[in-house]
Amino acid sequence: MSVASGPEPVPHYDTKWWGWGDAGKRAELSAGARERLREELGIDPAAVSPPAPLESFELAEASPVPGPVVAAVGREFVFDGLEDRLRHAAGSGYPDLVRLRQGAISDAPDAVVLPADAAQVAAVLEACTREGVAVVPFGGGTSVVGGVDPVRGEHSTLISLDLRRLKLVELDATSLTARLGPGLRGPEAETALAGLGTTLGHYPQSYEYATIGGFAATRSAGQASCGYGRFDDMVTAIELQAPTGAMRTLQTPHTAAGPSLRELVVGSEGTLGVITEVTCRVHQAPELEAYEGWMAADFAAGREIVRTLAQRGEAPDVLRLSDEEETRQSLAMSATDGLAKRALDTYLKVRRREGGCLIICGWKGLREHVRRRRSTAAKVLRRGGAVALGSRAGDSWQRGRYEGPYLRDELLGAGVFVETLETSHTWSRLEHLYTEVGSAIRQALAAGGTAGIVMCHISHAYADGASLYYTFLARSRAGQEIEQWREVKTAACEAIVRAEGTITHHHAVGRDHAPHMEAEVGALGIDALRAVKERLDPAGIMNPGKLLP
Amino acid sequence: MSVASGPEPVPHYDTKWWGWGDAGKRAELSAGARERLREELGIDPAAVSPPAPLESFELAEASPVPGPVVAAVGREFVFDGLEDRLRHAAGSGYPDLVRLRQGAISDAPDAVVLPADAAQVAAVLEACTREGVAVVPFGGGTSVVGGVDPVRGEHSTLISLDLRRLKLVELDATSLTARLGPGLRGPEAETALAGLGTTLGHYPQSYEYATIGGFAATRSAGQASCGYGRFDDMVTAIELQAPTGAMRTLQTPHTAAGPSLRELVVGSEGTLGVITEVTCRVHQAPELEAYEGWMAADFAAGREIVRTLAQRGEAPDVLRLSDEEETRQSLAMSATDGLAKRALDTYLKVRRREGGCLIICGWKGLREHVRRRRSTAAKVLRRGGAVALGSRAGDSWQRGRYEGPYLRDELLGAGVFVETLETSHTWSRLEHLYTEVGSAIRQALAAGGTAGIVMCHISHAYADGASLYYTFLARSRAGQEIEQWREVKTAACEAIVRAEGTITHHHAVGRDHAPHMEAEVGALGIDALRAVKERLDPAGIMNPGKLLP
Repeated sequence: MSVASGPEPVPHYDTKWWGWGDAGKRAELSAGARERLREELGIDPAAVSPPAPLESFELAEASPVPGPVVAAVGREFVFDGLEDRLRHAAGSGYPDLVRLRQGAISDAPDAVVLPADAAQVAAVLEACTREGVAVVPFGGGTSVVGGVDPVRGEHSTLISLDLRRLKLVELDATSLTARLGPGLRGPEAETALAGLGTTLGHYPQSYEYATIGGFAATRSAGQASCGYGRFDDMVTAIELQAPTGAMRTLQTPHTAAGPSLRELVVGSEGTLGVITEVTCRVHQAPELEAYEGWMAADFAAGREIVRTLAQRGEAPDVLRLSDEEETRQSLAMSATDGLAKRALDTYLKVRRREGGCLIICGWKGLREHVRRRRSTAAKVLRRGGAVALGSRAGDSWQRGRYEGPYLRDELLGAGVFVETLETSHTWSRLEHLYTEVGSAIRQALAAGGTAGIVMCHISHAYADGASLYYTFLARSRAGQEIEQWREVKTAACEAIVRAEGTITHHHAVGRDHAPHMEAEVGALGIDALRAVKERLDPAGIMNPGKLLP
Repeated sequence: MSVASGPEPVPHYDTKWWGWGDAGKRAELSAGARERLREELGIDPAAVSPPAPLESFELAEASPVPGPVVAAVGREFVFDGLEDRLRHAAGSGYPDLVRLRQGAISDAPDAVVLPADAAQVAAVLEACTREGVAVVPFGGGTSVVGGVDPVRGEHSTLISLDLRRLKLVELDATSLTARLGPGLRGPEAETALAGLGTTLGHYPQSYEYATIGGFAATRSAGQASCGYGRFDDMVTAIELQAPTGAMRTLQTPHTAAGPSLRELVVGSEGTLGVITEVTCRVHQAPELEAYEGWMAADFAAGREIVRTLAQRGEAPDVLRLSDEEETRQSLAMSATDGLAKRALDTYLKVRRREGGCLIICGWKGLREHVRRRRSTAAKVLRRGGAVALGSRAGDSWQRGRYEGPYLRDELLGAGVFVETLETSHTWSRLEHLYTEVGSAIRQALAAGGTAGIVMCHISHAYADGASLYYTFLARSRAGQEIEQWREVKTAACEAIVRAEGTITHHHAVGRDHAPHMEAEVGALGIDALRAVKERLDPAGIMNPGKLLP
């Protein structure tokens, strides 16, 4: 069975160039959220600054792309208009959005190149190696760590290699695996697989725009990772086009034939070559999907519940635990209905769970499995002192789960510094990491004179530990947004490194975390990665400035 | 919590030098097995040739070990007696055993060096790099692919680095992880962990003598892999001492910080350095353990049952399916009790499962989990047409599960060529692989004039595919045992490569599979591995001749 759509008219841009997602869609700050901004951050949410117009950008003049590079895909698939270049000049992190909104971007790829298939990717890389042209592989452009920044390294010309034409979907229904093209966006892959009765089950917040190639290149983790696994768990085989040739791992369920080359390509962030095909495990399409909310006494009690569920193999597919602050803020910010809010407050007061911590559970799968697993988890939740909030709280989370980035655009417009970062550790060291990173963010914000809101949740749980995902908001320092961001980001990263957590659980390294890679993997680890890089990409054209310090 | 035994009086040899396991233990060929040998292979099982005496070996004169190497561990931990050298000169594969039994080994390590800890390992490697001494890391010596062969490469001196003194066991009871020393044998690790209420759950057939370091270095898979995972699944962090320094991955449940260095060290088979510590996920010690047998109509029907169980996430912890020939042989060979055998035959005849395929299921864990999972699996088994044989068949497998290698020694003594090999593929391509490899082995045996018995089972099942494990027996060609072995092995490997299966699912590459590594990972894959090797081990001292062609 094979579903492969032909090349679409390219480039067809359906997203905001200055912010997140659907160009025709905006989020609205709820009354609760506006109140929070006013009361806690001293911000007037009505005073909105619009993004600079597209025409106001003054990009550096484009270096000409050498003929052999153009010839590799054909002139009609090389684009160098202002919008083409600008849309490939940045990812979707806070610093990217600030610079995009302000019209403050000058460096951009000299051209955007759209290969049709792996063979054209190989031809482009070969030509770029010969001509000394840097290459930034580009999927959905949703990196929040500077993963697609047009860093030229030693090269004067840089192209963005946009993989949107590589959209293979080929299902092996017997083995429940699918060969997928790197250019498929999350919904494109899921829709094609759903048509074949299956699902991938990978739903990161960037799901609607991020691509299969990006998921693999950055070790993405989706919201249902407790059930379906992280993306790197799903990958059974991978194909890489490196400047020096192709590497394909076998389509077998497992091998003991040496170090894992699959695990060397997964997470390589475009620095070794271009991922041109990913084979993933898929699942039968779920019969049933169910979400519900619970309220734990506090973060520590909630963490014990999540740990117990994970260690007993009884975790729901989606399992999220917000800390006290995130719970307080999300209840307040989502309060569009005063009556419902008061009813919930009363309920929590009666059940002595005011000031508690919200848990979201979600299951997908066979009806009988969902029923059994839900009832098993409920026992653990109750034993851990959690109180049921019913499916309303769960459904509400489920409905809004891709809304965060839209909301962020509104917040940025209102002058809010809003950022997220994440890490992970073992259960025994999670409390320490949680405290240290939270304190570091709070202190750095305060030191900059913009004390704010710092929230955290656990959204990926394992038998041996969990991730911590921080969201923080503060008044942005007008004209100093990037400095403000860097101060807080650096403080948080340094706290993570001191606590021996990982510098990134699922956002990847990109440019922002590269300075911390030596702390993460050691000098010899860096050496080993460099050795591979030099062998596969001797001219150093692949995504310069990312991953390695 | 920490349990670390002090250095034991070394070297204390408790195993046969010429064969498998406990020096005081022998297996006995059952009446059924003797009959099979006579009838099907034309072998007289009474005509046994004993192993050559230890004194008959004439090892090549040992090169002197340079002073700095000796100084790194102290003179009292360097051994160069005949028995020391011989016991570190070979693994446990068929060619090893043939040469050991015949006294036909001359090349051996020049000395056996026993470091006390990671620091001494580092010191040894540093000295060996300076002095140009090849190093073969040595755990249990149970490799069946030539993984510990004393291949000198460009070096005139070679030491065996025996890790038996590195026996750390340190449990993190909250995170359910344990830091383990590479020198721990399977039962040493399990006993220490059981004392702390936990289990690792890794039971390969070599369990009683193989070590933690070896499990990690070779990507071992245990008999309970469906439940507890393969060993590489269990590893959360690893420490490597390479000639150029140490590499430690973080103790976090997951990271997205680039390519996985953990997965680069796991499976490296001593070619990059020495694994000096492994952190593994552990589990609560099981409350209950249960085994049972079933009979499927045939191998295809059994395979569908195993696939269904694996894809629905309902596989028992132990799940094995024998093909028709293995089922026939194991029923016949285990027939020590004529009455029970006849009762079973009658039962199978009545249930129309004569000539069927044996399935062994095993569960370990919490009482309630085992009960539920067992009943769920029973439904799938019945729906797939399997007939219950009860717990007797399961328990019988469980009791004999480490007996195979003892039996092999008896068979070798009787002049039987007996070997195993394994591979894996996706479900959609497993039938083809099964047929092709089986045919290749049969044809190669027949071409050598020694047609034999070729059996196969599935013992590691995944959602996307499974392993195939072949065992074959034939009359050995006296005086040409190694040639006979090489002919059949080569034919089987070539058939695997043609079918695009993996050259090894869990035996690793060693020396025997190295010629097929390029087919497995491609020229660029080899290049990438070589690049890492050259950076970490520039003098090429680490386990020469293994893994890379």
